[in-house]
Amino acid sequence: MTIKYPAGVKAPTAPLKEKKPVKAKRHILSAANRGMVLENELNDSCLYYREKGMALIYKRPTPINIVKVDYSHGATITQAYFETQSTTDYNGVYKGKYLDFEAKSTKSKTSLPLNNIAPQQVDHLEEVIRQGGIAFFIISIDLLNEVYLIDAKYICEFYRNKPRASIPVSEIKEKGHLIKEGYHPRLDFLPLVDKLYLQ
Amino acid sequence: MTIKYPAGVKAPTAPLKEKKPVKAKRHILSAANRGMVLENELNDSCLYYREKGMALIYKRPTPINIVKVDYSHGATITQAYFETQSTTDYNGVYKGKYLDFEAKSTKSKTSLPLNNIAPQQVDHLEEVIRQGGIAFFIISIDLLNEVYLIDAKYICEFYRNKPRASIPVSEIKEKGHLIKEGYHPRLDFLPLVDKLYLQ
Repeated sequence: MTIKYPAGVKAPTAPLKEKKPVKAKRHILSAANRGMVLENELNDSCLYYREKGMALIYKRPTPINIVKVDYSHGATITQAYFETQSTTDYNGVYKGKYLDFEAKSTKSKTSLPLNNIAPQQVDHLEEVIRQGGIAFFIISIDLLNEVYLIDAKYICEFYRNKPRASIPVSEIKEKGHLIKEGYHPRLDFLPLVDKLYLQ
Repeated sequence: MTIKYPAGVKAPTAPLKEKKPVKAKRHILSAANRGMVLENELNDSCLYYREKGMALIYKRPTPINIVKVDYSHGATITQAYFETQSTTDYNGVYKGKYLDFEAKSTKSKTSLPLNNIAPQQVDHLEEVIRQGGIAFFIISIDLLNEVYLIDAKYICEFYRNKPRASIPVSEIKEKGHLIKEGYHPRLDFLPLVDKLYLQ
């Protein structure tokens, strides 16, 4: 519908939207979407690193258990189920070293529930460490708008000893390192990898 | 049905099957199945290496483009399509180093057709080399019953220059290294990785 204004009366224009910084924007999103936001930010960052030739890191595809495929018009999967990732979400190579990490986000200001982490992910990251690879978690504390890189050994140790059902944010802040957020890359975690593992 | 034999007459037993060596068995399989056989042999070998704590190598899941999901009884994918792997089939960590490879098999005794190799796989392996990772192909010459490990740079160079539509088996034999086959692991390629990249 077009509203006709009398001559001389200008149609009201929408107030100019301020270009909000990326950080502020994240608050608008529902907590449920945050896991997806962290994933997108990491995928963007890995793409940036790949395009710049800085590192080769990919998200592993979600494993799917395929039950039925219809071959009548090409191959269409008509029945399949999501499977749990038996490893972590991301791996790749940086300066010749193997790098492997899992991304988690928490809706709580004070802790990351341990049931967010699958036992096979802990097994996998411990094995990466044993094989001499670089292993860490990237943890987003959604309500604080902060994302941390923390060496996998702290989280795995906490998980194995299970002093409580969730890891306090205070612990993540103490043992972890705040990742610089920006526009490109969104989450600049490679400088922390340099500092923590390659110096 | 149980056949009753007169007293004193022993039921005939099946002739003792000779334990055929694994190599001989492979000939029985149709050429179409061989790609699958190579994949299974590599998956078994990687599992063996993981269980022995020797290396952590996984096959990447096939990427699936999911179009429809039915949430009425849990999450059932009802329409989805296979996507081309944008990278290679296998990657992982061995002695701290990043390792990445693609497995191919050829039905010809004399060559591996280049259209078996996707351009993005060549891009990816070149990038792995640039990042200081270990990159190779594992190529099965089905009819010769031989599997070779060949450094990715030879195949990538051949692919880029494309002197012909397929890589001669003679070239694979000259630049590559025959992988020892056995029972456990089926394809023992780590000794070649040691010899070629870590000495």
